[in-house]
Amino acid sequence: MPFQPILNDSPILDEPESVPEGLKYDVPLLEFGSVYDIVPGLRKDMPMKEKMEILLKFYQLEIIQAIERADSSGNSFIIDEWSRGEGLGGGITRVFQDGRVFEKGGVNFSAIYGTLPRAAAQRMKANHKDLQIPENGNLPFYACGLSLVIHPRHYLAPSVHMNYRYFETRNADGTPQSWWFGGGQDLSPMYYNEADAVHFHKVLKDVCDHHDPTYYERFKKWADDYFLIKYRGEARGVGGIFFDDLNENEAEEHFQFVADALSRFLPSYLPAVRRAYEPSDEPRPTPEEGKHWQGLRRGRYVEFNLAVDRGTSFGLQTPGSRVESILMTLPKNASWEYNYQPKPGSLEAKTVEVLKNPKDYV
Amino acid sequence: MPFQPILNDSPILDEPESVPEGLKYDVPLLEFGSVYDIVPGLRKDMPMKEKMEILLKFYQLEIIQAIERADSSGNSFIIDEWSRGEGLGGGITRVFQDGRVFEKGGVNFSAIYGTLPRAAAQRMKANHKDLQIPENGNLPFYACGLSLVIHPRHYLAPSVHMNYRYFETRNADGTPQSWWFGGGQDLSPMYYNEADAVHFHKVLKDVCDHHDPTYYERFKKWADDYFLIKYRGEARGVGGIFFDDLNENEAEEHFQFVADALSRFLPSYLPAVRRAYEPSDEPRPTPEEGKHWQGLRRGRYVEFNLAVDRGTSFGLQTPGSRVESILMTLPKNASWEYNYQPKPGSLEAKTVEVLKNPKDYV
Repeated sequence: MPFQPILNDSPILDEPESVPEGLKYDVPLLEFGSVYDIVPGLRKDMPMKEKMEILLKFYQLEIIQAIERADSSGNSFIIDEWSRGEGLGGGITRVFQDGRVFEKGGVNFSAIYGTLPRAAAQRMKANHKDLQIPENGNLPFYACGLSLVIHPRHYLAPSVHMNYRYFETRNADGTPQSWWFGGGQDLSPMYYNEADAVHFHKVLKDVCDHHDPTYYERFKKWADDYFLIKYRGEARGVGGIFFDDLNENEAEEHFQFVADALSRFLPSYLPAVRRAYEPSDEPRPTPEEGKHWQGLRRGRYVEFNLAVDRGTSFGLQTPGSRVESILMTLPKNASWEYNYQPKPGSLEAKTVEVLKNPKDYV
Repeated sequence: MPFQPILNDSPILDEPESVPEGLKYDVPLLEFGSVYDIVPGLRKDMPMKEKMEILLKFYQLEIIQAIERADSSGNSFIIDEWSRGEGLGGGITRVFQDGRVFEKGGVNFSAIYGTLPRAAAQRMKANHKDLQIPENGNLPFYACGLSLVIHPRHYLAPSVHMNYRYFETRNADGTPQSWWFGGGQDLSPMYYNEADAVHFHKVLKDVCDHHDPTYYERFKKWADDYFLIKYRGEARGVGGIFFDDLNENEAEEHFQFVADALSRFLPSYLPAVRRAYEPSDEPRPTPEEGKHWQGLRRGRYVEFNLAVDRGTSFGLQTPGSRVESILMTLPKNASWEYNYQPKPGSLEAKTVEVLKNPKDYV
């Protein structure tokens, strides 16, 4: 791994006390449109892997620019391009740290060519009857995805995760054989705020409903099941959507669905960050209480990512995986205290109550 | 779970700048002796489970008292006794937080009665040919253990982990059938200090050699393999010893081995904590560098415990397990920075060098 710039040498700026300049401007929630009108360079007749790469790289840049602007500090994402070797693919890791509004975050693109051993291929076949395993047992595959995690500095601003990906198995001649889409996004507030959760879910429901009336209910439930710290019976946040193995409709339809979700990621999330800096009549923690609780909630985030998340665990166990790109999801700071119980009736206790009892928001 | 005292309400005292009073007195490294002469209430003719419980509870108290004295703050371990229900066992969790010398730690005793499903029992049979699985497939077992993790505040003082345990399967009438011992201890410095590592290993080698000339080499290697963050190719610390399924000699012999290891835990570790406060001619980090690096090393400790350690993962996945007792091993604070690389030639870089290349210390 090449020597990297040490991110924490950047000066730590004071956190703003009112809405930061760059957060004042809404990212508009546009009408749904054809992805081919929105994303430059895309053509319908391209192979799906090429279309996905163009789509994901387009939104990687769009999101990065919006986060940098919202941060209002002049700090920028570093670029870290990496390769797994000739013909094996690689990625573009973009990482942000020590901003004014955002403490740590990453927006990573990757596109990987590899071969699955027979046992892994056979497990996949359980969900993909059409999947053909070659006689030698090794299944060539291609996978690309865009992964994002953002941890803001303010204890009233939620962390967010988003991931959209495409997977295909390949014939000996390199043409795609079986394929599917996966992804989702979820919101993790330190302090539960109903307006933020409702808005996030409403944007996701609109995207889902625009494509299939069954999506939102199914994918919301899937997120509640997936983003759960099972051994604590506590969700990582207020959920969102999650789906995998999606190939029930035409690939083109699923592609447009993913494109629509990506196009609405920023307006689903940024308003919740701005709200942290806006005056409010609602009860709020003191900064001391807020920072302390934020540390403990980030401990839970770390627990989910390291001890529960199948995606992280699969990634870390894959030989040759890029550990730093996988673990860019971890917050800058996290803390643990033995059996910490919030005071009954406190804002912290109310948040835990919601995390232990997932709700319907729309 | 009953409401617990909120530990972090205790006042945070300044860290001492010279050797704290309570750390000045050595815990003596006594001659090896018969456990029956050392531990009150033990009789040779008791069933092994009873002997282990007396032994482990004796050292739980001894260690707690020594840690409290060394902390020099008057802070004490809280007691949290818990039960899994009538006839299912329970434990005594003892936790320490926010002392002057020690930031967070726990010393937990547990003794559990349970039943293993057939699949788990069959996996165990691989290492225990004599194990008899009942016709109904459910294997009654008993397990007890003492687990310890200590995270000092000073960045020059290493964290330490220790665990000794006894496991037996049981016949329908409650008598033991197959049995074995397991355990070990390992040291995790933030900054590599050769004297500390050599001393720790030397004490362990003495204990091992007193019982079997092959133990130290085998168990040191086992620790190097076990306490490894595989996906980073980096050890959690400078190792120590680790063993499991130990039943190659008489149970009585193994019992005395575990007793000797427990009797030397304090003198194996406390001198390294004192050394952090002693003047030295060797190069040392500034407090700012030290605290920063300590946070990152604690992030690695969290990674090992949550993403790698089979013991933690088994515990968290066991229905009805006591999550807070299992996760008392986590440090109070941990941090992550994207692809942080210490400056070449720095004390931090030298430490990573050792962690990536396990050495022989004695």
